[in-house]
Amino acid sequence: MKASLGFGVIGAGRIGGLHARHIAGSIDGAHLVAVMDADRQAAERAGFGNAYATGDVDRILADGTIDAVLIASPTSLHAEQVKAAAAAGKAIFCEKPIALDLAETVEAMDAVERAGVPFQIGFNRRFDPGYAELARAVHAGELGRVEMFRSQSSDPSPPPREYAAVSGGIFLDSVIHDIDTARFVVGEVERVTALGRVLVEPYLGELGDIDTSVLTLEFAAEGSAGESAAGPIGVLQNTRRTVFGYDLRVEVHCQGGKLVTEAERATNVWRYDQGGIRGDYVYYFIERFRDAYRLEVQSFVDAVRQGRRPEPGSRDAVESLRVAVAATRSLRSGQPVRVADVDVAGN
Amino acid sequence: MKASLGFGVIGAGRIGGLHARHIAGSIDGAHLVAVMDADRQAAERAGFGNAYATGDVDRILADGTIDAVLIASPTSLHAEQVKAAAAAGKAIFCEKPIALDLAETVEAMDAVERAGVPFQIGFNRRFDPGYAELARAVHAGELGRVEMFRSQSSDPSPPPREYAAVSGGIFLDSVIHDIDTARFVVGEVERVTALGRVLVEPYLGELGDIDTSVLTLEFAAEGSAGESAAGPIGVLQNTRRTVFGYDLRVEVHCQGGKLVTEAERATNVWRYDQGGIRGDYVYYFIERFRDAYRLEVQSFVDAVRQGRRPEPGSRDAVESLRVAVAATRSLRSGQPVRVADVDVAGN
Amino acid sequence: MKASLGFGVIGAGRIGGLHARHIAGSIDGAHLVAVMDADRQAAERAGFGNAYATGDVDRILADGTIDAVLIASPTSLHAEQVKAAAAAGKAIFCEKPIALDLAETVEAMDAVERAGVPFQIGFNRRFDPGYAELARAVHAGELGRVEMFRSQSSDPSPPPREYAAVSGGIFLDSVIHDIDTARFVVGEVERVTALGRVLVEPYLGELGDIDTSVLTLEFAAEGSAGESAAGPIGVLQNTRRTVFGYDLRVEVHCQGGKLVTEAERATNVWRYDQGGIRGDYVYYFIERFRDAYRLEVQSFVDAVRQGRRPEPGSRDAVESLRVAVAATRSLRSGQPVRVADVDVAGN
Amino acid sequence: MKASLGFGVIGAGRIGGLHARHIAGSIDGAHLVAVMDADRQAAERAGFGNAYATGDVDRILADGTIDAVLIASPTSLHAEQVKAAAAAGKAIFCEKPIALDLAETVEAMDAVERAGVPFQIGFNRRFDPGYAELARAVHAGELGRVEMFRSQSSDPSPPPREYAAVSGGIFLDSVIHDIDTARFVVGEVERVTALGRVLVEPYLGELGDIDTSVLTLEFAAEGSAGESAAGPIGVLQNTRRTVFGYDLRVEVHCQGGKLVTEAERATNVWRYDQGGIRGDYVYYFIERFRDAYRLEVQSFVDAVRQGRRPEPGSRDAVESLRVAVAATRSLRSGQPVRVADVDVAGN
Repeated sequence: MKASLGFGVIGAGRIGGLHARHIAGSIDGAHLVAVMDADRQAAERAGFGNAYATGDVDRILADGTIDAVLIASPTSLHAEQVKAAAAAGKAIFCEKPIALDLAETVEAMDAVERAGVPFQIGFNRRFDPGYAELARAVHAGELGRVEMFRSQSSDPSPPPREYAAVSGGIFLDSVIHDIDTARFVVGEVERVTALGRVLVEPYLGELGDIDTSVLTLEFAAEGSAGESAAGPIGVLQNTRRTVFGYDLRVEVHCQGGKLVTEAERATNVWRYDQGGIRGDYVYYFIERFRDAYRLEVQSFVDAVRQGRRPEPGSRDAVESLRVAVAATRSLRSGQPVRVADVDVAGN
Repeated sequence: MKASLGFGVIGAGRIGGLHARHIAGSIDGAHLVAVMDADRQAAERAGFGNAYATGDVDRILADGTIDAVLIASPTSLHAEQVKAAAAAGKAIFCEKPIALDLAETVEAMDAVERAGVPFQIGFNRRFDPGYAELARAVHAGELGRVEMFRSQSSDPSPPPREYAAVSGGIFLDSVIHDIDTARFVVGEVERVTALGRVLVEPYLGELGDIDTSVLTLEFAAEGSAGESAAGPIGVLQNTRRTVFGYDLRVEVHCQGGKLVTEAERATNVWRYDQGGIRGDYVYYFIERFRDAYRLEVQSFVDAVRQGRRPEPGSRDAVESLRVAVAATRSLRSGQPVRVADVDVAGN
Repeated sequence: MKASLGFGVIGAGRIGGLHARHIAGSIDGAHLVAVMDADRQAAERAGFGNAYATGDVDRILADGTIDAVLIASPTSLHAEQVKAAAAAGKAIFCEKPIALDLAETVEAMDAVERAGVPFQIGFNRRFDPGYAELARAVHAGELGRVEMFRSQSSDPSPPPREYAAVSGGIFLDSVIHDIDTARFVVGEVERVTALGRVLVEPYLGELGDIDTSVLTLEFAAEGSAGESAAGPIGVLQNTRRTVFGYDLRVEVHCQGGKLVTEAERATNVWRYDQGGIRGDYVYYFIERFRDAYRLEVQSFVDAVRQGRRPEPGSRDAVESLRVAVAATRSLRSGQPVRVADVDVAGN
Repeated sequence: MKASLGFGVIGAGRIGGLHARHIAGSIDGAHLVAVMDADRQAAERAGFGNAYATGDVDRILADGTIDAVLIASPTSLHAEQVKAAAAAGKAIFCEKPIALDLAETVEAMDAVERAGVPFQIGFNRRFDPGYAELARAVHAGELGRVEMFRSQSSDPSPPPREYAAVSGGIFLDSVIHDIDTARFVVGEVERVTALGRVLVEPYLGELGDIDTSVLTLEFAAEGSAGESAAGPIGVLQNTRRTVFGYDLRVEVHCQGGKLVTEAERATNVWRYDQGGIRGDYVYYFIERFRDAYRLEVQSFVDAVRQGRRPEPGSRDAVESLRVAVAATRSLRSGQPVRVADVDVAGN
């Protein structure tokens, strides 16, 4: 087992900078070798200790002291950088999504598999201690079979028009996290039915997007192929506006009870005054998932050093996207869509 | 204003007995005159103070000291008793449902309207202090327009086969409470899409019923007729098994925040031991809604004495049932069903 | 066993009226025969069914159809009425306190014991489902031996000057409920040390009273006489001002964990808005203990009908008062006071 | 303002190692230069990036690239190392306590003041986001004047006999955190009265220590000198055994309401099963205060770089210890002790 993995961080924005900091000081078995960003000064600001800054991704890929790359560049660059890193034999941790296009995603994942390099996709919620405990308890069967699933996520405010225009829409941009959680906790989804509204921001409607959605899920039955009539059912509810904070809640209803993860509070202070009792809430997703951002990279490092396959990997990158594409099609058609019917021919 | 309404309670089972007790001691402006039950001894047990017991419903209807009847007999008798009481000029409080058949319900409600007697249907959740406060805040617009609604209700255990066989199915028997809450809090429903599973009790499947359901709701947009594309959306989730208790949760997501009513605890005790923190839950619906059973009758009495029209009335009896019938049809067809397309020609 | 106890309620104020209503409609095995109040109209308003109203307490005591009296008159009348009712052979339920004077209390309780009539004192918190469950779990030893106890009670606002002047001070008027809870849950108190402040209302200071207090308790060790050095310790904290509601919290720290009862919410609604999350609280003690007021009388009725000795009885009336008197003495002297040193010679 | 402070960490045990990791990757404006530990291998394990390891504290003090030292060595070395670091002109962050002896503490703090170097004592609770928010709200007067304070802290298990023998007893070792919180939130303490028991571990009694304590506090009145009769009152409750986790709760009762910080949960998962609802709790103090350990050092670095005096400083190191010594004396004498009467002549 390698004593410590040398890391090159590609992309020194908000998320990339956070990862660089974690690798420099909070991840066991890893050290920061270099930070790359097209904006050379951003790369320098994100550096720690004796890591070097560069504006050239090829320098990272050519550096023999770099064992692994963490890709946190703009989404449009992900697929190409993943393929290049795979060709260079680096272990790869890539922020989600690989691409908004299913074909492009499949192609990049195929390149990873052919190269045989370790790969992990940044579905960070899986590493939140609450989500992880919920999945652990379900997989251990502590409350028996799952009967109904629900995940509700709400962003404090809608994305700006510029971002929304290239985001792929609410299902590919935001609901995909709930989809991945559903797949992680319960299992594969066979059919989806979408319902949506534009109630928050008219410009989302102009872009063909929505801001308020309900997605019903029909999961595969355990141990049966293609027979969802006996499988669990689920609901994902998402909105782009919650004034009080970043609002996440997952409920798993099982034979023997239910498991719930609640929205996280910013502090553990309760204030009792003439308005009753009051508490605060976490507002930003980075604050909410700070531990998860660290723990997902730790898990990646542990897997690579121990020769295990990192999770979630290429299959999750493809399959969670496939469900999100199915949801988008269902919204447009007003009909249920079988996930298996979504192929790479086009979104 | 009449000083005190004389009441005849028709049906002295669990619910009728509770109502009789409330009228005898906890309702202002009402007194108990008589309790009728086909089982004369049950009628006697439910009596309080100087109320008389009888096995003959006609004696109740003919008694001039009885101003109002509270009908808590078996469902199959409701429609006939409502019509007879209306003909006798009594104010009527009737437990839900009037009938499982929409045509029969409409006919009984028409009889009530023609007779001009006060009428209230026992959708008791509207009088639970939590549900009432939630509706009040929404109607007052304290958090702005509703964008998304969710109600989740779970019974601790499925109904016995004999009851299930005549219950009309999960939507008419159980989900109708969530439907009425949705109508009460948000407004009229235009379209529903149902999804269901038999995961708890195979005999429910044999009866053509289900035990696990998701119902999506499309509400009418405020101020627009027939244009639901801009209205709120909602989800009702129901199961027939929650081992920890009677599990109710309503969430209303609005422009300015959200309102939630939680499941009720049996006591306010928290126990901290080696398993962490533990609390208990209310198990029976009668215990959960004890206050609501009292408050709904108080509201009826106040309305009758003050010459106001009681709420919820004949329209709610019909319209909540109509949505439940639409849900049942959607489950069978696998397609969305417009509520307006459900007419009295048949369920 | 007598089928139903006939009750005469003495005193038709807020509490007496509530008891009359409960006896009329919510207590099994009891019926309301008469309501007495010096204000005859108050007595009439509190009547239910065919109960008669009277302004004459002797008529109650002479009525052979009355088996039990519930005394809810002004405190200054309690001791005399208890003695008269005992002499008349009635079962007695008396609101707390019997008297503010220990000697007068002991004398009345001696009269009750000599007459051999059933007696219960209205320490209603013992019948709150939360407090009762907490005591049950402790007495069953579910978490092992008690090590530390804490009860905190806060009234929303201080008593009016007129009431405060005759109330006996915060320990006899208010903290005595926490003292009785401590005795009920943990056991007898051997020594107390009081600390107090006048921070809310200057007129309380003028009356020699306080509005903010901390009382430390040293309990008797289990199985040992007069050796408190090995017994549990406790703290009672009380204030006369909590703007958000009636604030009660009990914590029992045991070998195997802790038990907590929280302040009760008015509804189960949570509101999430720009201020975070908000909930409401119960404001009035009558609302908070509505169930306890009913359950304590039900327990009294059950005990009398079954020939058991009601609890809490004459010993609790005396001993909880004795601790409150010890606390008052400690406040004045600034020194710990042994409870056994407080005798009837004077407060 | 210096771009980045070079840090030497003295002591590479559990806490020192955590600080080294934070300085290496999570503190803005600081970098790790060296780690010293008598156990050279421990020092190496705690190193990050290009920091060097040493077994020689003098090498740290002589290194001109080291601006600040973080002292996390065994308590018995703190006072000497603080004095040596002050003489070397280093900015000093020292874990609590400086010493168990008040005279020794005062002497070290005097050395720091004479040298004029920045100094901070590691009362980390002040930097927990909940505690900090509570203090902020009180100091801002958002709920008016404080009337009553309460802090309850319970360790999951008692310290081992060897540690307990040199710990100075529960007040100096553990309750001092609650004392510092009381001083931080409310203000200076004028008088204390202690009550204690040995209920958990007999060996604590053999050492003259206790494991269960109640300490009442009389705070100085605002704006008055030596007149505590009008100041707030408080209670600290501490035990050495809570099987469910590390149990902290602070309540501040003010004119306009109360503020509470609760014990922290390990995850935000709630499990509902046949035992009701269950949640987990944080068990270790390091896990509980992980953020606080980072934030206190960040605050120190910010203050040093900006030329502000760090808080809590030498005065807090002395005064919180003085109250703890007063508590120890009160426990022994059974009498209230004025804090001002505790001078350096001896504990």
